[in-house]
Amino acid sequence: MTPAALFPLIDILGTLVFGLSGGMVAVRRDLDLFGVLVLAAATGTAGGITRDLLLGQTPPEALQAMTPLALAALGGLAAFLFAPRIERFTRPVMLLDALGLGLFAVAGCQKALAAGLAPPGAVLLGTLTAIGGGMLRDIMAAEIPRVLREEVYALAALAGAAAYAAGRAIALPETPLATGAVALAVALRIASVRFGWRLPHARR
Amino acid sequence: MTPAALFPLIDILGTLVFGLSGGMVAVRRDLDLFGVLVLAAATGTAGGITRDLLLGQTPPEALQAMTPLALAALGGLAAFLFAPRIERFTRPVMLLDALGLGLFAVAGCQKALAAGLAPPGAVLLGTLTAIGGGMLRDIMAAEIPRVLREEVYALAALAGAAAYAAGRAIALPETPLATGAVALAVALRIASVRFGWRLPHARR
Amino acid sequence: MTPAALFPLIDILGTLVFGLSGGMVAVRRDLDLFGVLVLAAATGTAGGITRDLLLGQTPPEALQAMTPLALAALGGLAAFLFAPRIERFTRPVMLLDALGLGLFAVAGCQKALAAGLAPPGAVLLGTLTAIGGGMLRDIMAAEIPRVLREEVYALAALAGAAAYAAGRAIALPETPLATGAVALAVALRIASVRFGWRLPHARR
Repeated sequence: MTPAALFPLIDILGTLVFGLSGGMVAVRRDLDLFGVLVLAAATGTAGGITRDLLLGQTPPEALQAMTPLALAALGGLAAFLFAPRIERFTRPVMLLDALGLGLFAVAGCQKALAAGLAPPGAVLLGTLTAIGGGMLRDIMAAEIPRVLREEVYALAALAGAAAYAAGRAIALPETPLATGAVALAVALRIASVRFGWRLPHARR
Repeated sequence: MTPAALFPLIDILGTLVFGLSGGMVAVRRDLDLFGVLVLAAATGTAGGITRDLLLGQTPPEALQAMTPLALAALGGLAAFLFAPRIERFTRPVMLLDALGLGLFAVAGCQKALAAGLAPPGAVLLGTLTAIGGGMLRDIMAAEIPRVLREEVYALAALAGAAAYAAGRAIALPETPLATGAVALAVALRIASVRFGWRLPHARR
Repeated sequence: MTPAALFPLIDILGTLVFGLSGGMVAVRRDLDLFGVLVLAAATGTAGGITRDLLLGQTPPEALQAMTPLALAALGGLAAFLFAPRIERFTRPVMLLDALGLGLFAVAGCQKALAAGLAPPGAVLLGTLTAIGGGMLRDIMAAEIPRVLREEVYALAALAGAAAYAAGRAIALPETPLATGAVALAVALRIASVRFGWRLPHARR
């Protein structure tokens, strides 16, 4: 399987697992079936919707093609039906989440560059695409967004997007560059969980 | 009075009552007069502003015509002045809220179809128009949005918007279709409160 | 130094101090270094991004020029490094915050009028530009936005923007008008803190 053929698959898995994470939060908060589906759909699509709004590309992709929304809702349905069982599989869910994070960061950066944004803005937009869904999920659950508290989450997305933008600036070939940038973000995220990396906190 | 003449009246009542609901939350949280007006105005107009942003129709209607904003603020003023008395009239407030919900859902869907969105996206946008204000109200009050917790609220909006989009697809005449779709959403919402309908919750 | 030469300086100070305020909230919530920088950057730029989105001017300025974002992050870094010492200087921070509030309100109103919005909508957009960053900061920290609770904060921004729009309507000369409008907002805010002005609260 070539990297290019892998990409849509990771995209599908990423949206699904972001939906799943939204659904798990909703189940923990005892929302009903419809609330679970709404929170899952919002988590899976909010990053991309924010990206499209900021680029002025309206209506956003997620309102035109139904696939992302359906996938995110499917993740929510899985959370609704199998929450207790899914709780036991934190590792595979974390892996898929890391994959989604890396892919959304690089794809968001790519789309922003294609829209004519300069590299620093494109890197930011990529990061926002990757973390936006999770932020909305936690804000809707009246919690401090996990991406602000969790070590090396937004930072991993930023690193992936920055690596991609840097590679484009020196004209590296597209497919290996994108693959490498996604891999960097995923590796950083997984390593930070595996080895318990922590960023410094302020003295108070 | 013809249905067409009724519509602007319901629109006025809907914005007013959404403003009222924002004002009541603000009073309960002991905000000052200006905070009450701001939360009321946000609750009454946020759904429409979100809809216009997602359709790329900027600046949004609510920043160009002052009527919706003034109506929502008027609802907030009523909450500020008469909160204890209004608490006793939960039934009429719930009825007006249901009317606003149905009308905003169908009008949002209508506007999205007119902007060229396909039916599934238009149904979503209609639902978002109807529930967006209440969501922002609760997020600003640092609570889990009531639409995620309250049974058959967003679902009633979705049903109204979907019925309208379906009727348009088979070319039903506009006025009876829109009236029927609004009535469906309103009836679903009221029946769910009246009969205590509940959607299933996940086992945990 | 002429007023025109002062403006960019106040703009820099305003963004910096809004970033600082975001950083201080993040430090109090014990976020790590990156979380502090993200919350600071969001607080310093969210008002302007919202303004640009509502005017349909995409991508927003803050994604094209990196200065505002860098300044806001610098404010966050200062909070991270010197939080305990900054806590002691509430007065200078409050002064800078008031300056930022007034300037953002007038500059936002100015930009909205230039984009063709009618005065009432432009006044609202100016107010939103001034308070948007602080609102996002508090929502992300899972708190009720301080602008809803703090006496004469949003109201000071509204007064400055309204004075500017009124002056434009009777063709007052630009520089003294803008300076006066900023001064009005700043003076109202400082006086309300200094004299403990309170707006009425509802009886419950």
